Amino acid sequence: MRLSRYFLPILRETPKEAEIVSHRLMLRAGMVRQESAGIYAWLPLGLRVLERVCRVIREEQERSGAVELLMPTVQSAELWRESGRYDAYGKEMLRLKDRHEREMLYGPTAEEMITEIFRASARSYKDLPKNLYQISWKFRDEVRPRFGTMRSREFLMKDGYSFDFDQAGARHAYNRVFVSYLRTFAGLGLKAIPMRADTGPIGGDLSHEFIILAQTGESEVFLDRAYLDFEIPAATVDFEDVAGLQGIVDSWTSHYAATDEIHDAAAFAEVPEASRMSARGIEVGHIFYFGTKYSEPMGAVVTGPDGIERPVHMGSYGIGPSRLVAAIIEASHDEAGIIWPDAVAPFDVALINLKTGDAGTDGACAEIQAQLESGGLSVLYDDRDERPGGKFATADLIGLPWQVIVGPKGLAEGKVELKRRATGERETLAPLDLLARIKRA
Amino acid sequence: MRLSRYFLPILRETPKEAEIVSHRLMLRAGMVRQESAGIYAWLPLGLRVLERVCRVIREEQERSGAVELLMPTVQSAELWRESGRYDAYGKEMLRLKDRHEREMLYGPTAEEMITEIFRASARSYKDLPKNLYQISWKFRDEVRPRFGTMRSREFLMKDGYSFDFDQAGARHAYNRVFVSYLRTFAGLGLKAIPMRADTGPIGGDLSHEFIILAQTGESEVFLDRAYLDFEIPAATVDFEDVAGLQGIVDSWTSHYAATDEIHDAAAFAEVPEASRMSARGIEVGHIFYFGTKYSEPMGAVVTGPDGIERPVHMGSYGIGPSRLVAAIIEASHDEAGIIWPDAVAPFDVALINLKTGDAGTDGACAEIQAQLESGGLSVLYDDRDERPGGKFATADLIGLPWQVIVGPKGLAEGKVELKRRATGERETLAPLDLLARIKRA
Repeated sequence: MRLSRYFLPILRETPKEAEIVSHRLMLRAGMVRQESAGIYAWLPLGLRVLERVCRVIREEQERSGAVELLMPTVQSAELWRESGRYDAYGKEMLRLKDRHEREMLYGPTAEEMITEIFRASARSYKDLPKNLYQISWKFRDEVRPRFGTMRSREFLMKDGYSFDFDQAGARHAYNRVFVSYLRTFAGLGLKAIPMRADTGPIGGDLSHEFIILAQTGESEVFLDRAYLDFEIPAATVDFEDVAGLQGIVDSWTSHYAATDEIHDAAAFAEVPEASRMSARGIEVGHIFYFGTKYSEPMGAVVTGPDGIERPVHMGSYGIGPSRLVAAIIEASHDEAGIIWPDAVAPFDVALINLKTGDAGTDGACAEIQAQLESGGLSVLYDDRDERPGGKFATADLIGLPWQVIVGPKGLAEGKVELKRRATGERETLAPLDLLARIKRA
Repeated sequence: MRLSRYFLPILRETPKEAEIVSHRLMLRAGMVRQESAGIYAWLPLGLRVLERVCRVIREEQERSGAVELLMPTVQSAELWRESGRYDAYGKEMLRLKDRHEREMLYGPTAEEMITEIFRASARSYKDLPKNLYQISWKFRDEVRPRFGTMRSREFLMKDGYSFDFDQAGARHAYNRVFVSYLRTFAGLGLKAIPMRADTGPIGGDLSHEFIILAQTGESEVFLDRAYLDFEIPAATVDFEDVAGLQGIVDSWTSHYAATDEIHDAAAFAEVPEASRMSARGIEVGHIFYFGTKYSEPMGAVVTGPDGIERPVHMGSYGIGPSRLVAAIIEASHDEAGIIWPDAVAPFDVALINLKTGDAGTDGACAEIQAQLESGGLSVLYDDRDERPGGKFATADLIGLPWQVIVGPKGLAEGKVELKRRATGERETLAPLDLLARIKRA
């Protein structure tokens, strides 16, 4: 992609309203633009990151056996009255009326709707288990939205729901998601620690938050440092292996880890001192087992082998991709800008032409772009008529993993410069060696 | 994917509320479920088709030089007051108030917002041209929603917007989209004819609708049969070639073609009789050039080479993917169910085990699934414990392009049956020959 054709509205000044670094950098890098309080447009560069985050999430969802569907954003109030949550939910629910004065709402979550969809067809325990998920826009009408896409009103959410015949089945479903989330966050280049959580207004009796460690994280967390060396389950993990998954979950919940909300200083004091660690963290996932909380009032029942109807056991599982994009930046940036992990970078390479309009550099850049793209790398080619300093600053700000710098001097010797954004390391090499060099890393 | 793990709530009876065949088949095949009047959940099978439709649209958008972004669904009323459309739009606009009583709306389209995004950074004619698009959910509060996803209230829309310095540039942008739409609909397996259209409430002075021919289409169209033999522009078409694109557009608008709304019987009578054709059609795309209708009131201006500021020339371009899914079914079905074009089929192959539980057929099916999937085909394996008749009916109903039928008798001779859904043709062959046979077609 040529930058002259792209739409990358970089901001020169730091926006005053942005209180946290990810918000500042997302605005400055032209990733998002605020359209209303807490409501953002995802500009091309931001959308590419969001899509890559979603791709990793989808891959791991499918691997764990979850099936994707997509529910509408506008839901009927009637449905939420069945569970009793319509009146209970409060002002965070965006309520609206259609032209026939029917009460509707913009879904903040979808337990009721998925239960309705499930109950319409499920009849027998043989229809179980099911694990359905969607990635869709939700709305929560925060009283004072801030922190950019970290806590926006309109936000993207991967919400998954499991349906099982009994508690043991539901526990296995929960463990599937637990393990799949470990893989998901690791796949995004993040260090995520599961921490036991209060179940809050959503109800239920088993719940974990997944917290990533980030120097500028929103809250303080306390954990046993041992978790940092824990192994992420391999891609070959058998999601059908009930005991195997339970073993992984047991291991990942065997040491101390707590957010400040439920931190227990006495229990933490029992962790060996060298292992005690306090850090800043950001919640990026939340999983719940809530039994028959929705299936019972809403009549989502199946017939068992004994012919008796019982409400199904359910869980729900959330990851916020639009929040994750900001969280990744909180975990990975420096003074000059964003440093994207390879897995979610909007492009792999920033190709910088130091002298746009010069036949030599123009030609070399076109060849390098073609060569890298044919090798499967994505390239953002800065072909603008701008000073080198501005191009370097833009490349550092938007944080693509690699920078390829092409100038007349180097070309005279048959060389270009390659810079790794994360470390600042530079090397000079022949253009034809770029692809192999980048792929090797 | 094993059907026993999937979520495919087939309906045995034809739903009474469904008036058109695509609506009936989408409900029966478990593709969608109505959650409120005109509001649908996309169940897994339906979502896969929707995603494939979007993929074809995206490919052709990118090829033509358009850049993807994503605007929020909830917009501020303030923005629509700038263009004067907030009061003009009428009851189809879903208006709402947030917790602070701010007037908002669920976007039915996004000319105002994209203009706001553009004007915030564009300064000079050098920032042009731009062509930005999104694929996102829109809401139009139809007074009497019906026909399923063909005319739903919450619907998916690809809406693109072009920004050019002058009318000549805007005309080229329009032609880019025109050609890209020809390729898009052909890529979806559809016969689409561009027809001159009224510009309606969106304004402007150049507009075409893209109408696909379908026996059960919503409206009557009249055209010169010559269009049916017109060549679709190749993938290698040069979107920078101003004269070349104009030539393609001129050719595709050189003969008579009109919807009944603007049909001119006298002009049609001048078409040679053998070429005159009337047919049923469905509108699946609509493109507009509307000049400075939004840029002028909203102050989206750029400085020209002469230093003078001028409002930019804009166009907007829409395709409705959720409508297209229904339209494809209207164009491609029979008594037994849907017949998916290969390009949008939710899975390539329905693998039918005639005797689930039999070690021979179970083993053969598992091998065939693995073999086809490793060859890049997607397979929906009917491993349910059900009678063959039910499995055949399901396979015909959901309309996957190929059916592979595995029974004990055939296996005894080392053979399985392959059926092409579209033609009903059957052949028997060795399991190991399936992949090559299907790929050859």
